[in-house]
Amino acid sequence: MDLIERLNWRYATKAMNGKTVPEEKVERILEAARLAPTSSGLQPYEIFVITNPEMKAKIRQIAFDQRVITECSHLLVFAAWDNYTTERINKIFDLTNEIRGGSNPFWENYRQRLLGIYPARDAKANFEHAARQSYIGFMAAIAAAAFEEVDATPMEGFDNEALDNLLGLHEKGLLSTTLLPLGYRDEKNDWLLPQAKARNKKEDFITYIK
Amino acid sequence: MDLIERLNWRYATKAMNGKTVPEEKVERILEAARLAPTSSGLQPYEIFVITNPEMKAKIRQIAFDQRVITECSHLLVFAAWDNYTTERINKIFDLTNEIRGGSNPFWENYRQRLLGIYPARDAKANFEHAARQSYIGFMAAIAAAAFEEVDATPMEGFDNEALDNLLGLHEKGLLSTTLLPLGYRDEKNDWLLPQAKARNKKEDFITYIK
Repeated sequence: MDLIERLNWRYATKAMNGKTVPEEKVERILEAARLAPTSSGLQPYEIFVITNPEMKAKIRQIAFDQRVITECSHLLVFAAWDNYTTERINKIFDLTNEIRGGSNPFWENYRQRLLGIYPARDAKANFEHAARQSYIGFMAAIAAAAFEEVDATPMEGFDNEALDNLLGLHEKGLLSTTLLPLGYRDEKNDWLLPQAKARNKKEDFITYIK
Repeated sequence: MDLIERLNWRYATKAMNGKTVPEEKVERILEAARLAPTSSGLQPYEIFVITNPEMKAKIRQIAFDQRVITECSHLLVFAAWDNYTTERINKIFDLTNEIRGGSNPFWENYRQRLLGIYPARDAKANFEHAARQSYIGFMAAIAAAAFEEVDATPMEGFDNEALDNLLGLHEKGLLSTTLLPLGYRDEKNDWLLPQAKARNKKEDFITYIK
């Protein structure tokens, strides 16, 4: 399958039919997010996979009553680190050394550089930086869903603070950034499905400096 | 080709061999970014495609002298809107109506809702929101490059303000967010190529709420 074709196939699904997405498809979507790159490889976010019907219903209430939240099969919640800490940075660098079977002075210097910058920086700036990284994984999951022929609804429209409280994210040092309901389009009831995809014109989006 | 396989193939290339990426591949990479979703479809960022050698050399100087900036074939610069304005929002909504051949009350109400919220909001908060959207397109371009068998180096390590001045981004109401050099790996000189891909463990990255 071709990525461009898949990106043209997908759309922000506004009605889903309640059918269940097979676990192996969900796992490949999550794996694509896990493999996505992030700044310095820190992967400063986590994903929550919600299939519990009561939890989905509660989230719908704090997300402008958007129907796909309960009509979807699996609801993904992306949540970024609320701050960069020495412990978090060291954990990822140590894991990298474990995976690579050792370290080297260049890599350890780089660790020290990050440890000298990030933990001392304002928590809000660190969260904003981490939040941006979560959007990289978010797009990886959106693309992966399209390859799996699974519909998805990229979503920012919800009460972040209420969701953080509902999922106990503060205690985990996380703050929610996006939602991604996964499921299958309800072709009869989705007003957006027949609409043409609208994107900015190439000439207003791309500038060549030759 | 399979997305997971492509994400395992790609890595943040640290040395490139100077070979030119064919224009049709670059165009497909840019098209993937253009097709990527954004919040409310506003696509609040632009992409600059730099092939000019002098410009690349200047950018390398303000990007920690990273060699791929001059060794790459095409250097992409992602730059987000510095603010949401009434004009910018209306332009995208008007374009959407043009593409879809008309409008409807639901859509126009949605336009008014955004016009009532975004332009009145702090410019910094608006830029942060726009910047996050640019990371969605950034990942779309990274994935597209992998499908084209083109190497790419996702990069945040540069002097944003210096780059904004160099490219005249302030005058365009834009602020740089990321760089993406496109090219081909220099297999003999890339220290990262033989290293195993390091990612967070699935159990520390995914939480199921069943």
